[in-house]
Amino acid sequence: MSTNNSPQYILGIDGGGSKTKTVIVSEGNIVLGTGISGPGNPLHGFEQSINSITESALLALKNAGLEHLKLSDLVAGVGLAGVNLPSLHKKMSEWENPFKKMFLASDLLVACLAAHDGKDGAVMISGTGSCGFSYVKGEEFMMGGHGFPQGDKASGAWFGLQACETVLLALDGVAPPTAMTSILLDVLGVSDEMGIVESTAGKKATHFGKMANLVFDCAEQGDATALKIIEEGIEYIMAMTTRLEQKNPERVAMLGGLTRRIVPFMTAEFRAKLTYPIHQPEIGSVIFARQQLAK
Amino acid sequence: MSTNNSPQYILGIDGGGSKTKTVIVSEGNIVLGTGISGPGNPLHGFEQSINSITESALLALKNAGLEHLKLSDLVAGVGLAGVNLPSLHKKMSEWENPFKKMFLASDLLVACLAAHDGKDGAVMISGTGSCGFSYVKGEEFMMGGHGFPQGDKASGAWFGLQACETVLLALDGVAPPTAMTSILLDVLGVSDEMGIVESTAGKKATHFGKMANLVFDCAEQGDATALKIIEEGIEYIMAMTTRLEQKNPERVAMLGGLTRRIVPFMTAEFRAKLTYPIHQPEIGSVIFARQQLAK
Repeated sequence: MSTNNSPQYILGIDGGGSKTKTVIVSEGNIVLGTGISGPGNPLHGFEQSINSITESALLALKNAGLEHLKLSDLVAGVGLAGVNLPSLHKKMSEWENPFKKMFLASDLLVACLAAHDGKDGAVMISGTGSCGFSYVKGEEFMMGGHGFPQGDKASGAWFGLQACETVLLALDGVAPPTAMTSILLDVLGVSDEMGIVESTAGKKATHFGKMANLVFDCAEQGDATALKIIEEGIEYIMAMTTRLEQKNPERVAMLGGLTRRIVPFMTAEFRAKLTYPIHQPEIGSVIFARQQLAK
Repeated sequence: MSTNNSPQYILGIDGGGSKTKTVIVSEGNIVLGTGISGPGNPLHGFEQSINSITESALLALKNAGLEHLKLSDLVAGVGLAGVNLPSLHKKMSEWENPFKKMFLASDLLVACLAAHDGKDGAVMISGTGSCGFSYVKGEEFMMGGHGFPQGDKASGAWFGLQACETVLLALDGVAPPTAMTSILLDVLGVSDEMGIVESTAGKKATHFGKMANLVFDCAEQGDATALKIIEEGIEYIMAMTTRLEQKNPERVAMLGGLTRRIVPFMTAEFRAKLTYPIHQPEIGSVIFARQQLAK
């Protein structure tokens, strides 16, 4: 297909664990409208995922005042968590989708394309989970992202788990006292060690992720235990970055909800290696669709 | 009640997560018969717990050739996990039990009484979980035992989790290669990083506990990563022991399924502080019952 055929409008869709966001853009990737619907991660439900994709796309058209357009007239780039698994990629590809054409990519690939405006690059992501990813000369490379509790080091869930662990040790008198103790008790709404144990037993990553911010709050006040946790997290991010650099990306961007908390604790030297992302992930979906159309 | 009233036979019952064991003893705590039934931990099901207690007691009578005795003629000491929680202690105490009299204690107290033949002492326990406990001048003190993954350091589940974490880091090239990698893949029956992630995602402590032995196997062959994990575990056990010693126990015993693996890695100096348990926990239940009868 030649670029002469490229349509005026493109839909860029990013389906994540908590919401699905669609933008409709004109040539030059100017955002004309935005639509947000429910969770779009097909790992957590295929039907919900395809409903969210369709709904957010229709909302984006409405938001842009382009209700006269039909989804069947439009090309969509869709970035979804989980579609790096072959079985899920196949299932999603076979969906009789409402679009003129749908180009499917992993959430990591569209985030990376967005971060570097379509150029080769790498991303370090630290949100509830963590992972590293590079896309260089058409080759995707992923590292980390091993899940909670055995992986996802330097993620929100990991920082929260470290907080929990060290506070419990401090309360038992086998680790130094830490300012995190009283704040953790407050955050969990409990009054003692047993309360922490009961309120965290069997909980998932998102629950521990809520305890991440207090580590940074306490470190900013000089708490030695909190600083040590952050140091270990940053060491991991540095080791990941070194591995990603071996793939020769043009840039490495740091993304995800914890970025603004972690970056201030890095050395100036290491911080200088990292860039901010250029675009939001849904623009990465647009870029991916344009790249595929141009092939 | 005076000791003149003490019955000839006593039942000692230990109800744990996987089985319930009852012994019937004569004066002098000579074991005449043993009965084993299903799980007895009331945290995992009250009905199952009371059924297992009754069943194992009847089996012990049969095993001793004392079927002519009735449970209603016999005093029972019962050690159960979870009854340190007041709500569960109340529920179990209110059970219309089949015994002449039932004396209820935590699994930790009966293990400690058993380890030290009823004398004041402390125990360090490392099985699937871990914790420390002392019983001195009638005062119970518990530490650790915070559950998986945020606590239970130096337990089987903790060693397995560390193995998993470090192997995943090694496979990503951000930690040194370790001999644990190939053995962990074998133990889990998978062939790569993704296989480890899929086979451990969302799994409970017992699943990770199965990966503990390989840490010790590899450390015995000199693997540096495995040795470092064991060192951290032993540091925790030493810190716990120091805290327990502040309670002035006469002895500190090390118990639990991992003991025989951990102890050889301790320094001779620290190892000299620890003793073997004198009796099995169910004898602790007998000792507890006799102490209560003598009050």
